[in-house]
Amino acid sequence: MSPQKTYTIGIIGGTGKEGKGLAYRWAKAGHRITIGSRQEEKAKAAAQEVMELLGADHLVRGEANEVAAQESDILVLTVPYAAHAEMCERMKPFAQGKIIIDVTVPLVPPKVTRVQMPPEGSATQQAQKIMGEDVQVVAAFQNISYEHLLNDEEVECDVLVCGGNKEAREVVLQLVEDAGLVGWNAGPVENAVVVEGLTSILIGLNKQYGVPSSGIRITGIPRKS
Amino acid sequence: MSPQKTYTIGIIGGTGKEGKGLAYRWAKAGHRITIGSRQEEKAKAAAQEVMELLGADHLVRGEANEVAAQESDILVLTVPYAAHAEMCERMKPFAQGKIIIDVTVPLVPPKVTRVQMPPEGSATQQAQKIMGEDVQVVAAFQNISYEHLLNDEEVECDVLVCGGNKEAREVVLQLVEDAGLVGWNAGPVENAVVVEGLTSILIGLNKQYGVPSSGIRITGIPRKS
Repeated sequence: MSPQKTYTIGIIGGTGKEGKGLAYRWAKAGHRITIGSRQEEKAKAAAQEVMELLGADHLVRGEANEVAAQESDILVLTVPYAAHAEMCERMKPFAQGKIIIDVTVPLVPPKVTRVQMPPEGSATQQAQKIMGEDVQVVAAFQNISYEHLLNDEEVECDVLVCGGNKEAREVVLQLVEDAGLVGWNAGPVENAVVVEGLTSILIGLNKQYGVPSSGIRITGIPRKS
Repeated sequence: MSPQKTYTIGIIGGTGKEGKGLAYRWAKAGHRITIGSRQEEKAKAAAQEVMELLGADHLVRGEANEVAAQESDILVLTVPYAAHAEMCERMKPFAQGKIIIDVTVPLVPPKVTRVQMPPEGSATQQAQKIMGEDVQVVAAFQNISYEHLLNDEEVECDVLVCGGNKEAREVVLQLVEDAGLVGWNAGPVENAVVVEGLTSILIGLNKQYGVPSSGIRITGIPRKS
């Protein structure tokens, strides 16, 4: 697969399943990936793990979050919600003028099947408020089960992309496609409450039906593939 | 089709496409339907219209909203958002001890593709607050294009059902199935923001792709049919 354009992407807090899964798919599509972590050693171990899955001709780097952010055109926030606001503050100086893909779902344990949003309206709006207007914060990937990203299987869940300006959403939609997923422009940042909150509904369905990963598909529009 | 249980259903403000479509499908499934309107004559005309589609062996009544509400076990609110709060106040005396299915989407023109919720969090939560705790307000059908209900074609959009208690949601899920649709228990009333807000995202997709009715399907769970 050859992407339309290659980006340098820093995956902040990227040592979990989300981060490694996105790193795997994007590196495979030709993007330059740095996995970031608070601990450089953990980042390097995660990068090594992803590289072993990818084979010899792909390089994924591991660095401290600040280094990963500094060096990248696009930052991806894959931190637990409890660390979200603080990480936005820490990344703010490195994020100016860039696109931030915010993957965070504001789950508030123990009631993770109940939608509970921060006062800003959503985690994405919270990030936008902290980062300031020179940063394009775009919500995406909240509804994907990341177990499915660390291999090449088809993911039965579409990606709703919202926030930022239209150009930023188009870049993120390209990255969704490069990850082998189907993405949709879901509009302005105010719509992030739907995209984030849908995860609580899907977790509830997983519990009710004893399935690992329910998802959604958009219907009524011809699909590309 | 023979439903598990038959209900007497009053469709409040039911002279539009939503109301007539639901009346058609539920009457066909054996439920006793009264279409309500502020003007009794308009209600009777809508009921007549639905009966002509159904054929001779089905009765759909048309009455003033208050009469329809008084006589019914289950009320369905299909009013424009601008009339929602006032209609909740007016129906409150007739709704006590009953299930209210709230179909309302809080669209705020002209920006109908942007999620904009009332201070209560959603139209459903607003209705619940007005009606009081002896009423089970359940959100459903917000994402369906009602063009598809006034005939027998398959609807390519699932119905997310949330709010009320579990028993109320189960009754509504049965009614979703009786209408020939696939429904899912989407959890507590706090999740209504997602179900209602998704409509703005779908309207945005309709505009982007020039389609009449995009929708959603839940994936990753075996479907009944």
